[in-house]
Amino acid sequence: MTLLYLLDMIGTAAFAASGAWAGVRREMDLLGVLVLGMVTAIGGGTLRDILLGDIPPFCLQDETYLWVSVVVSLLVFFFPTALERFKSPLLTLDAIGLGTFVVIGTGKALSFELGPFGAILMGLMTATAGGVVRDVLSNRVPLILQREIYASACLAGGGLMVVLVKTPLPHNLTVVLGATAVITLRLLAIAKNWSLPRAR
Amino acid sequence: MTLLYLLDMIGTAAFAASGAWAGVRREMDLLGVLVLGMVTAIGGGTLRDILLGDIPPFCLQDETYLWVSVVVSLLVFFFPTALERFKSPLLTLDAIGLGTFVVIGTGKALSFELGPFGAILMGLMTATAGGVVRDVLSNRVPLILQREIYASACLAGGGLMVVLVKTPLPHNLTVVLGATAVITLRLLAIAKNWSLPRAR
Amino acid sequence: MTLLYLLDMIGTAAFAASGAWAGVRREMDLLGVLVLGMVTAIGGGTLRDILLGDIPPFCLQDETYLWVSVVVSLLVFFFPTALERFKSPLLTLDAIGLGTFVVIGTGKALSFELGPFGAILMGLMTATAGGVVRDVLSNRVPLILQREIYASACLAGGGLMVVLVKTPLPHNLTVVLGATAVITLRLLAIAKNWSLPRAR
Repeated sequence: MTLLYLLDMIGTAAFAASGAWAGVRREMDLLGVLVLGMVTAIGGGTLRDILLGDIPPFCLQDETYLWVSVVVSLLVFFFPTALERFKSPLLTLDAIGLGTFVVIGTGKALSFELGPFGAILMGLMTATAGGVVRDVLSNRVPLILQREIYASACLAGGGLMVVLVKTPLPHNLTVVLGATAVITLRLLAIAKNWSLPRAR
Repeated sequence: MTLLYLLDMIGTAAFAASGAWAGVRREMDLLGVLVLGMVTAIGGGTLRDILLGDIPPFCLQDETYLWVSVVVSLLVFFFPTALERFKSPLLTLDAIGLGTFVVIGTGKALSFELGPFGAILMGLMTATAGGVVRDVLSNRVPLILQREIYASACLAGGGLMVVLVKTPLPHNLTVVLGATAVITLRLLAIAKNWSLPRAR
Repeated sequence: MTLLYLLDMIGTAAFAASGAWAGVRREMDLLGVLVLGMVTAIGGGTLRDILLGDIPPFCLQDETYLWVSVVVSLLVFFFPTALERFKSPLLTLDAIGLGTFVVIGTGKALSFELGPFGAILMGLMTATAGGVVRDVLSNRVPLILQREIYASACLAGGGLMVVLVKTPLPHNLTVVLGATAVITLRLLAIAKNWSLPRAR
């Protein structure tokens, strides 16, 4: 599905920008920024492929993902102030990436015959594990463990997809609905400043 | 072996409680607590299965592990004060989990024809890697690298099992003796406040 | 190739020493020092083998790597002051390990038919991922993301190898040239105190 591949690349680019930006903020050197950009963009899908046994992982089978991550990270490194101006569109692109990664991850897990819980987890992992590794490498508690409707949007979209797959809906529509759920929830959460309850 | 499966579930629940509790203490949100509980409970076995090539890992083949981890983590999130009262029995359940995870990991590694050193390492990893990831995600130096007879009990139990497997003892007895060694050492270490020498 | 295996062991020993030394400095206990030594020495190659699908990874197929790591880590734990005196030769041995690990990783990735980008990444990962895990477990931002021509030397050597493999040069010469490039760059960087540009 060509549209899904295009959205996948948009998500890859947005995630790489967020990773490279974390490196710039921590005053890393060029290589640190590149590594953080790449890990954020491809880390989640790579971990998913390791767990599903699809080896070598997607980004080593199609190096386009590597090139997109590196080029975006280089741009962020050399033009960090430009990124500041794109901050708000970047949040939207990041949400698109989130939705795309969830449906790709959940869909792939289902095609590898995982159960519903495992498939939802694989969608969540595809979308968030790269950001977790980014935060661990930056020596911070991962953002998604602390704040906002981010991972929860992924769980909702993955859950919707796992349910819809059991219905006679065409697969493409299931994918579109799952991704739309994630993106809508995420953008609403940003706009309304929603968050999950915290432990007391 | 049904008893081993029951002990495995007890260990999974105890490990999930310790992970979720770490999330509550760090004031994570609901999702953070769930992730920490799950990672602590299933992380070690998952890493072992990746290294042995048994893919998808145990918890994606039998989703009971996922459900147990999630339900326990939810309980810890919503009733954290109740957990305080169970602190002392939890240490015992944690020790039972430790012993069970070691013999499952070492036994599985031996059945995958690993050498003795590798098999002992796989037992150690099954029992401790989840806790290491929990501490890394909480932005702390992993506890087991710093303190107490915890990992050492795993090494002793795994080592005993690797030796006993070469004798004509029945396999079930080997498993029981290995697990008992870990649990006894661990409980003694807690009672007597033992620790390893530290680097000067 | 016996010389490569010898260099591989020298690198393993040097990397184990650097990992164990990090544990000693953080006042970890005996087991923490052993774990940090082993992870630093074998972590990169293990991650590479997981991504290439060569399971169980090299160090579980040939336990010599495990023994070398453990013995070196024990020496560092019990004789830390001796290590101080060997600091300068250790930097040279570490550079030799770096070059060896890069050519082993890149070469293995090429023989698993990865593309050029992936092969260079696998060389980099073989040489540096163990150190990254060492730093994450020590609760620090990984050194290689921040400082010095370390990872860059790996990229240069891996890149050279990927190019030379396309020429009619004999494979052994390609390996020697790739490793020499890494080692020379790394030693020059130490001597001249080179570093990469930093993000502003």
